[in-house]
Amino acid sequence: MKKLEDYVRSIPDFPEPGIIFRDVTSILQDADGLQLAVDSLRAMVKELDYDVVVGPESRGFIFGVPVAYAEHKSFVPVRKKGKLPCETISAEYELEYGTAEIEIHKDAIRPGQKVVIVDDLIATGGTTEAIIKLVEELGGQVVKICFVMELAGLKGREKLKDYAVDSAIVYEGK
Amino acid sequence: MKKLEDYVRSIPDFPEPGIIFRDVTSILQDADGLQLAVDSLRAMVKELDYDVVVGPESRGFIFGVPVAYAEHKSFVPVRKKGKLPCETISAEYELEYGTAEIEIHKDAIRPGQKVVIVDDLIATGGTTEAIIKLVEELGGQVVKICFVMELAGLKGREKLKDYAVDSAIVYEGK
Repeated sequence: MKKLEDYVRSIPDFPEPGIIFRDVTSILQDADGLQLAVDSLRAMVKELDYDVVVGPESRGFIFGVPVAYAEHKSFVPVRKKGKLPCETISAEYELEYGTAEIEIHKDAIRPGQKVVIVDDLIATGGTTEAIIKLVEELGGQVVKICFVMELAGLKGREKLKDYAVDSAIVYEGK
Repeated sequence: MKKLEDYVRSIPDFPEPGIIFRDVTSILQDADGLQLAVDSLRAMVKELDYDVVVGPESRGFIFGVPVAYAEHKSFVPVRKKGKLPCETISAEYELEYGTAEIEIHKDAIRPGQKVVIVDDLIATGGTTEAIIKLVEELGGQVVKICFVMELAGLKGREKLKDYAVDSAIVYEGK
């Protein structure tokens, strides 16, 4: 029986020498891989009491929405600046060069709601930190953060040490 | 009992006077709205024989992946130029000002595979036409195209008249 990691295509020396790129589209491209990925995420939240799944554009949508649908929760998208049509709050995070800004609808989370964050990958944890900031600014409580893949060598978990974090696949490198 | 259209927030005169913006995030933000939207799409493909769900970045991901997951199909993302890590083919489509380019992985669809395209909204149909071109260039056969919302006044269906098209909500205007 194939494991989830067997569905991940690894591309060596991309985008630069020494880096192994983990391609998540190869999981989706196989119906069994997609089942396994979403089922792994669902298993992480099965026993939890929560209201909302939050996922960032655009690979967080890929994994967050099927979890929300299958568990009968709502889904709240976090998007790049300027994409959401109603009133938003925003947060910045650092990229390798410069910064990026993400937004959430102001009315998307009500104070006291319990939130699960879902994304495809944790690298340095910078995006996730910004998402947490947005959720908490709206009064939401982050009860769990779930990833399909984790690049443990980039130590993103250290940034999220006050939260419950789970990853379906942990790669030791970067 | 609420209908799917009851979950859509309509924003008059946005982004310009005379246009009513239909906000799809308000559907997702309610667990029942999300159920209803995905169940409506699933009902459109229930009796079909197909292999793959294709959805464009990024709102096509929101609705396409839960359909693929729930129906045990694979999901193939169509993305904006430069986002997919492996070998791709691309297609251009017209925007109000200028053109945009979208891509699909070359190995994502095998010749003869039957494809369902899912997206949130059909307006002029330009994006969908470009997606069809990509699928057919890879040898796939588009057996159905499913939308959550249709702006019938923009006549997108005329561009897709050789295909089976279904929309959960049809708005008469633009």
